[in-house]
Amino acid sequence: MSEAANETGTEQMTIIAFSGDLDKLWPTTILASTAAANGMDVTIFFTFWGLMPLVREDVRHTGNDAMTKMLSYMNPPGFKRANLSKLKFGGMGSWMMRKVAAKNNLLPPEELFEMAQEMGVEMWPCQMTMDLLGIEHSDMVPGLGEPAGAATALARMSKSEISLFI
Amino acid sequence: MSEAANETGTEQMTIIAFSGDLDKLWPTTILASTAAANGMDVTIFFTFWGLMPLVREDVRHTGNDAMTKMLSYMNPPGFKRANLSKLKFGGMGSWMMRKVAAKNNLLPPEELFEMAQEMGVEMWPCQMTMDLLGIEHSDMVPGLGEPAGAATALARMSKSEISLFI
Amino acid sequence: MSEAANETGTEQMTIIAFSGDLDKLWPTTILASTAAANGMDVTIFFTFWGLMPLVREDVRHTGNDAMTKMLSYMNPPGFKRANLSKLKFGGMGSWMMRKVAAKNNLLPPEELFEMAQEMGVEMWPCQMTMDLLGIEHSDMVPGLGEPAGAATALARMSKSEISLFI
Repeated sequence: MSEAANETGTEQMTIIAFSGDLDKLWPTTILASTAAANGMDVTIFFTFWGLMPLVREDVRHTGNDAMTKMLSYMNPPGFKRANLSKLKFGGMGSWMMRKVAAKNNLLPPEELFEMAQEMGVEMWPCQMTMDLLGIEHSDMVPGLGEPAGAATALARMSKSEISLFI
Repeated sequence: MSEAANETGTEQMTIIAFSGDLDKLWPTTILASTAAANGMDVTIFFTFWGLMPLVREDVRHTGNDAMTKMLSYMNPPGFKRANLSKLKFGGMGSWMMRKVAAKNNLLPPEELFEMAQEMGVEMWPCQMTMDLLGIEHSDMVPGLGEPAGAATALARMSKSEISLFI
Repeated sequence: MSEAANETGTEQMTIIAFSGDLDKLWPTTILASTAAANGMDVTIFFTFWGLMPLVREDVRHTGNDAMTKMLSYMNPPGFKRANLSKLKFGGMGSWMMRKVAAKNNLLPPEELFEMAQEMGVEMWPCQMTMDLLGIEHSDMVPGLGEPAGAATALARMSKSEISLFI
């Protein structure tokens, strides 16, 4: 039990969102919004591939040199361009999964993300990944927290009842 | 440390089994059975792809409409049809890995799963995934707990010394 | 909060390094070295694919029979032969990612690993995986801890403020 929890009585959860895959964006956003709805303080630290969904939909490609631009072509940014981790089939898998989700009233990750934001979930972009992939703060969706590093994420995790790497 | 642990003196572990890949079924079932053997209270919450291994071997395909049926063709259910997360080679990788495991007396995941069940590990299927993929309770192996949701899994994790997303 | 932490005042983190993919070796080694730099006691338990990067660079292939040797051909050992979990493109993805990392002064995982070792991070190879894949202690990089099993890893995790499965 964290000291913070002892002091404030509020439980904490921290998720390291390493994956930007569509199928993993669902547990990240479902767990975060459900925990927030149940009164927990929730932080998501978006790092590596996990940063790509945070890029705004109208920013089609990111990068500040040939290499990072090519990486963003190979791995298109934005929630709506996220692919499944398996059953890719040239994007058909993610299209099917979104159809199945919609039919069953499961919100898409981009809407669960916004809902979680409105419920106070802190969304931290990883500073190192931004530098690495040449992603500017202005490339990303609004309402994110200050870019953070591993030390900040670790400090938050050490005070959290639940820490998950997704 | 959870309040429950303080009260009962029993440590808890909760695993979110998101992956249904053969290679990840081993750590899930090995950690669960080993923890149970060492006196811990263990719960596994099977969600998304992780639900597919729980489908009975004689149920060759699942789904309640064209889309979910096609998904189950692309991602065949049951422990014994699980593929590796890498080195797939059309199923040869998982065949080889099972051979190597058998030669080294490492039980296959389906047997470790049953052993863990017998040792009292609670196996919770994710209700939302069942709805999403059109999987009925009768499609699944016996001895599972009641279908559960994210809030129930979070409550268990917040009382667990160890929570892992696999 | 673990009893050990109560006694010594030192926080603990345990990482189960299941993946040997280049992109996941970065969070493993960055989190471990950053946590150690901030005074935490850190243990990494290298298991399954995660054991392969620990094989020395001059050991080109491992295995003690036809099957395990073939597995090591399909999944070459050593940090420098690690591939990305996605965007493989026959090794071009990992080559590009290493270039991008070097340009941005992000150390490669093999150097972060050594730095973490020097800072006292305990590196535990999984005994079962060594047996399974036919990897000898002499095949691996120096400075590793004694081979450990799931029970030892679980005991360490149950005393850790942060436990992650990567």
